[in-house]
Amino acid sequence: MKILVDAMGGDHAPQAPVEAAVRAVKELDVEIVLVGNTAVIKNELSKYEYPQEKITITNAPEVISNHEEPVKAVRTKKGASVVVAANMLRNGEGDAMLSMGSTGALLSAGLLIVGRIKGILRPAIGTVLPSAKGPKLLIDAGANTNCKPENLVQFGIMGSVYMKNVLRVDSPKVGLMSIGEEEGKGDELTKKTFSKLKAAPVNFIGNIEGRDVMEGTADVMVCDGFVGNVVLKTVEGMGHVIGRQLKNLFMKNLRTKIGALFVMDGVNEFKKMMDYREYGGALLLGCKKPVIKGHGSSDSLAVFSAIRQAKMFVETDVISGITKSLENNITE
Amino acid sequence: MKILVDAMGGDHAPQAPVEAAVRAVKELDVEIVLVGNTAVIKNELSKYEYPQEKITITNAPEVISNHEEPVKAVRTKKGASVVVAANMLRNGEGDAMLSMGSTGALLSAGLLIVGRIKGILRPAIGTVLPSAKGPKLLIDAGANTNCKPENLVQFGIMGSVYMKNVLRVDSPKVGLMSIGEEEGKGDELTKKTFSKLKAAPVNFIGNIEGRDVMEGTADVMVCDGFVGNVVLKTVEGMGHVIGRQLKNLFMKNLRTKIGALFVMDGVNEFKKMMDYREYGGALLLGCKKPVIKGHGSSDSLAVFSAIRQAKMFVETDVISGITKSLENNITE
Repeated sequence: MKILVDAMGGDHAPQAPVEAAVRAVKELDVEIVLVGNTAVIKNELSKYEYPQEKITITNAPEVISNHEEPVKAVRTKKGASVVVAANMLRNGEGDAMLSMGSTGALLSAGLLIVGRIKGILRPAIGTVLPSAKGPKLLIDAGANTNCKPENLVQFGIMGSVYMKNVLRVDSPKVGLMSIGEEEGKGDELTKKTFSKLKAAPVNFIGNIEGRDVMEGTADVMVCDGFVGNVVLKTVEGMGHVIGRQLKNLFMKNLRTKIGALFVMDGVNEFKKMMDYREYGGALLLGCKKPVIKGHGSSDSLAVFSAIRQAKMFVETDVISGITKSLENNITE
Repeated sequence: MKILVDAMGGDHAPQAPVEAAVRAVKELDVEIVLVGNTAVIKNELSKYEYPQEKITITNAPEVISNHEEPVKAVRTKKGASVVVAANMLRNGEGDAMLSMGSTGALLSAGLLIVGRIKGILRPAIGTVLPSAKGPKLLIDAGANTNCKPENLVQFGIMGSVYMKNVLRVDSPKVGLMSIGEEEGKGDELTKKTFSKLKAAPVNFIGNIEGRDVMEGTADVMVCDGFVGNVVLKTVEGMGHVIGRQLKNLFMKNLRTKIGALFVMDGVNEFKKMMDYREYGGALLLGCKKPVIKGHGSSDSLAVFSAIRQAKMFVETDVISGITKSLENNITE
């Protein structure tokens, strides 16, 4: 299996993608193509020992920044790492692609170059979040605003296949993010979506609320990309603030530092549970080939997790699963 | 000053409202009218000593549950505690009202009985949330779905007045909840709202994102009630789950229990920061008189905080402030 990694995207590129690629070819039985500026990547790679035949480089001299208009950038910058990788994926020169760069650029490359699965109206970003009941999928986490009910139904279908195949959840519970548990509660979009999700080929458990995100009530949390993005960033932000507060609490004085020693194991366990790096990247679900979006601030552990996730995505054939589920969807 | 307290609403009624009323008349220089079943309230009051002339009871034999259709219930159940209290408020038999009961019923009573401030299109729920930079206001936290830009502008105006008057924030920063910092980012609603908020008589700082909620970037976080309710409940739910995990962490074994003793002060300080009970209730902003919604699970401390908040709401004349700001709003 060959995974295409955008070596230029993200806050810690090229160091993090390169280090993760080296670890991946040693531990995961994959080959990696690093896409980006050849000279820069070669220089970074020279710091490591690894089985040389398992990492190749494809030159891509251009970069798309977070501030560029993504569709235009993808159309005009043919030499950008994300564009080169997407073309390779489409042409079968790799089995999955991963980028830590601009989300908009990756979305556009996924849509315009890799293409949608037949029948999928809008691909969506699925993000794995920690919860009291283990990892759960939030979809759409920001690819689409102003969605229609048909979009949300497809998000539920795609999310179910991912949770079933990759995270081995038997009959994943699909919840519709709303503001009240009863069927009649919500806004125009969720009210119209409710009956369609009941008829869809998923295990629909009804409306869920914000409090269910961290409780882990549903395996797949379905929502419009505006709502999903706000939820995702609220959870991330709260995680940061609480983590900082706890650290300050423990480092306050000698007394608290001694206390910290006694509870360190538990604190680390807790931090691990809340650490997005353990859960891999976000998924652009609905494209013809696996496209993974790593967090912009990914360090090499996070990139490594995302590569492992890309491998699982390919091995468990999520794309075929989505195609089959779409055929069973009688809601449209 | 006379505050009308619905003694029958909430998980801990009548115990919590009655205990809070007793504490309030002793400490806050207010009079309280307890509205509800007279016999039940009398029985509960008999457990306390207090200045008798400062607490009166108005009989209201009916109750509206969370499961009733609120508008219909408010129209038909004339003897419901929330309806009786709203009528008293309208008639000047009290300066503010507080209920821990059904949000929908309180909203309907506020709209149909107390009435809107002239010019306000839709009253909204403002909720005070903790953040790394102190308490901040989220508005709308669930009163209105499918809002228009004009609604969001008014939420920003009302929230500003509240933060300025009650929480003494000089020139409160108003942020528009969106999914990207730049002006062009967001959904149809936020894109249209952005320019109107720039022209409104508020200190508009532009778009904010989910991560800004806990960081406390804006003093007033403006959003549609669907988004706001999801954010509010996500934050509450995450607070619960993390609190539970930390407790388990500290209570795990003798070693961790010893550790807990060393950091207890800090943990309690942290818990206090995250405790919604310290921040009072939510506010129904846009009604002609102050209407406060206490959390359904309020204990007597939470009800007491909400009574103090109601007093501040009256004393700082938030309603006149809103009326004046509306006159300066040239965005419509």
